[in-house]
Amino acid sequence: MNELLPIKNIFNNKDVVSIDQFDRASVEKLFTTTRRILKMSPSRRLNLLKGKLVTLLFFEPSSRTFGSFSAAIKRLGGLTIDYQNPTETSSAVKGETLEDTIKVFENYSDAIVMRHYEMGAAKRAADAALFIPVINAGDGSGEHPTQALLDGFTLRQELGKLDGLKGVLAGDLLYGRTVHSLIRLFNLFNNVTLYLLSPKNLRLPEELMKRFAKSNVKLVEIPTEKDIPRDCDFWYWTRVQKERFKDLKEYEKVKTRFILTPELVKERGNKNMLLMHPLPRVGEIDERIDSDPRSIYLNKQVKNGMYVRMGLLQLILGK
Amino acid sequence: MNELLPIKNIFNNKDVVSIDQFDRASVEKLFTTTRRILKMSPSRRLNLLKGKLVTLLFFEPSSRTFGSFSAAIKRLGGLTIDYQNPTETSSAVKGETLEDTIKVFENYSDAIVMRHYEMGAAKRAADAALFIPVINAGDGSGEHPTQALLDGFTLRQELGKLDGLKGVLAGDLLYGRTVHSLIRLFNLFNNVTLYLLSPKNLRLPEELMKRFAKSNVKLVEIPTEKDIPRDCDFWYWTRVQKERFKDLKEYEKVKTRFILTPELVKERGNKNMLLMHPLPRVGEIDERIDSDPRSIYLNKQVKNGMYVRMGLLQLILGK
Amino acid sequence: MNELLPIKNIFNNKDVVSIDQFDRASVEKLFTTTRRILKMSPSRRLNLLKGKLVTLLFFEPSSRTFGSFSAAIKRLGGLTIDYQNPTETSSAVKGETLEDTIKVFENYSDAIVMRHYEMGAAKRAADAALFIPVINAGDGSGEHPTQALLDGFTLRQELGKLDGLKGVLAGDLLYGRTVHSLIRLFNLFNNVTLYLLSPKNLRLPEELMKRFAKSNVKLVEIPTEKDIPRDCDFWYWTRVQKERFKDLKEYEKVKTRFILTPELVKERGNKNMLLMHPLPRVGEIDERIDSDPRSIYLNKQVKNGMYVRMGLLQLILGK
Repeated sequence: MNELLPIKNIFNNKDVVSIDQFDRASVEKLFTTTRRILKMSPSRRLNLLKGKLVTLLFFEPSSRTFGSFSAAIKRLGGLTIDYQNPTETSSAVKGETLEDTIKVFENYSDAIVMRHYEMGAAKRAADAALFIPVINAGDGSGEHPTQALLDGFTLRQELGKLDGLKGVLAGDLLYGRTVHSLIRLFNLFNNVTLYLLSPKNLRLPEELMKRFAKSNVKLVEIPTEKDIPRDCDFWYWTRVQKERFKDLKEYEKVKTRFILTPELVKERGNKNMLLMHPLPRVGEIDERIDSDPRSIYLNKQVKNGMYVRMGLLQLILGK
Repeated sequence: MNELLPIKNIFNNKDVVSIDQFDRASVEKLFTTTRRILKMSPSRRLNLLKGKLVTLLFFEPSSRTFGSFSAAIKRLGGLTIDYQNPTETSSAVKGETLEDTIKVFENYSDAIVMRHYEMGAAKRAADAALFIPVINAGDGSGEHPTQALLDGFTLRQELGKLDGLKGVLAGDLLYGRTVHSLIRLFNLFNNVTLYLLSPKNLRLPEELMKRFAKSNVKLVEIPTEKDIPRDCDFWYWTRVQKERFKDLKEYEKVKTRFILTPELVKERGNKNMLLMHPLPRVGEIDERIDSDPRSIYLNKQVKNGMYVRMGLLQLILGK
Repeated sequence: MNELLPIKNIFNNKDVVSIDQFDRASVEKLFTTTRRILKMSPSRRLNLLKGKLVTLLFFEPSSRTFGSFSAAIKRLGGLTIDYQNPTETSSAVKGETLEDTIKVFENYSDAIVMRHYEMGAAKRAADAALFIPVINAGDGSGEHPTQALLDGFTLRQELGKLDGLKGVLAGDLLYGRTVHSLIRLFNLFNNVTLYLLSPKNLRLPEELMKRFAKSNVKLVEIPTEKDIPRDCDFWYWTRVQKERFKDLKEYEKVKTRFILTPELVKERGNKNMLLMHPLPRVGEIDERIDSDPRSIYLNKQVKNGMYVRMGLLQLILGK
């Protein structure tokens, strides 16, 4: 596709590179479509993408997002061409540009889902593909729009609304593309307050702080766990991403600066809150809290990832 | 699944981690189901797993077992999410636990087939998966139950029975999980005698010798090829597995201690015997014997691997 | 299959190892079948390989050929068992021979599409497979027959004929298997003239020059770009393949000896010519020429690759 188009309720064949393409109506439409698909009979669902072929072009390791998209496509009757780590196994080794690779795969498939290690790669891929849509499955420390959409869908399903929510975003807010996309998503709704908790050197980029200073979403940095308001609707914890650090000593210092423990939840939480995490986790959530019914990071949140991608693919590619 | 359940003729949705879960009736039921599927029309067969999605989660290289399961699923109309070597290409790189990976993939798929490099990993995975079955496709030097089942199915098809058989197990009997699972399987039948032929430092673990001392299967260690009784029904040769050795000098010493040659078969064999091997082989079977009709390691045994996995998947997941 | 059979209009279940197996009638039949499939309704097309399972056994990196075959099979309703880089992820690590690997996969699938890094491997694989066909997807600096067939199909579609064409073959003519297969293909037609343009140390092997000295295809070596006749029907540019060089200094010297630029096309080309390349390119085509309508390397040529493989698979495996 040649330009990054706003979705404006018309998903058909469009690239999905950034949450910035969505308005509130588009997000609502996606959620409605997702719920509609979940109510369909299996045999009807297996017809939605019948005969469609999607390339999963993963230049960076990702079992979770790869599996989620693969399942979403196949659960709707489509098939995939699988590419994992093409930096090692493909034309990239031979020195081909990203643009050429994309142009080749658009001749084979009806859409490309791409994970890449460089920020901006998704936009470049969308520009290169002239005839078929490109869906961003994460580009470096850039965006990961379907993660934000699944988080939004999960909150909507569990809490009945996105307007007026109060939540905590904790962990790596500097490089964490998940968090960046999620803030953008909340900005489409009204009266959301997000408490930001991070190590000093992993604070939300100044640029984003400024951008949302006069927006629908109120961003409040808090210095320690003790400053978490007791009435939050959700806590959204994230991993400090080792692969984004050049100096591993810096990583070691901050990796478990904030740990989600049963004690912390008891001290600063409430009984209706949700505990979320985009996964994988590497120590920042104490496993004792996994069995708490408020913990939904290993079940509902993951399941909703597959569901919302089914909804998105159906809107973009389906009949 | 929370516990390792005995199969007891009810496969539906159960984990398959060890041959120890099977009783004789379950094995017979599996074999009968497999034969029934083989008689079906292709179009009927392609409906058995229609709409089912199975994750092939392979943490260790294995072209054969991966291909066999992939084919078995697709031959019944199901689809797969493919993971090969996720140690290099997935969340495992980011430090995720096996348990978390399993919990994620159970949200996407209807079953998980797992190959792992650590003994006990299959049980851990089965414990972690709460809603869908886990099938062990080999865990380190632990078990490889479907290999034993395919070997048993092959013997049953070719010889008409498993009771009363006499056979040789040769090669690496210490680390060879194939052999361990196979002995367990024979123990469900009556009056089986197995002659054990291995380098001294690769003898069957003492624990297994003791466990089967007063069982249905009689284990007889023999020092050399010359001690093989002439009236065996089958010879089951195995590879000395390089990847299980820490000291490669030890490996070099024993890797071709016993070689299956036409001369040996002539000297110690008989005209109705079967020559079997779980593959891959790396020198322990002389290729001159490949064309001997008694050699079934490259054809019937491999084909039956796919067949018996079709039977198993149908019993666990099918309609 | 035990011998390398001439195709002679009967593709059914035959190995495809070399263009030498084809006669003119076989090539025409393949092109006709391909065109017939393109005119079918999608639902009819999705039935052609329904229930068929093809192993994609790729021992060498190749995103393009892998994706093209994967798409061709799935666009006809078949499924694949995927193997990429099995040198690292499979039985090959454990020391298994190519022959054994092939014999195993022929028990699982209805055909094997193989890419290998050694010249002659495709013939070895075809010899090893007793019951199912092997299709060569490139073996070292040997052959890559489906590339030649797609190039031929593209020229036939765009120019209406293959007889009497004049074209340039430029780049690595020594190791370039694409070029070798293409010359063999042209030899099945009449009165073709090919101008050969390459660095001195990458000239077409003497053996091929001799073989085609008195054939249907006239080979004319030209020393520089300035010697390209103005009335060529097509220019076929190729990459100098880094992976074939032992001495990387030699590679650096020649890699961009000939570059296809808008200026060169203006100076030595004409308005009806086609600009082709088997891809990937790494600098030997100036990107400014991508948007020229005569450039078909990133669109028609790639698309035709998938199409002609659909035709071939249908003739070999289809109902």
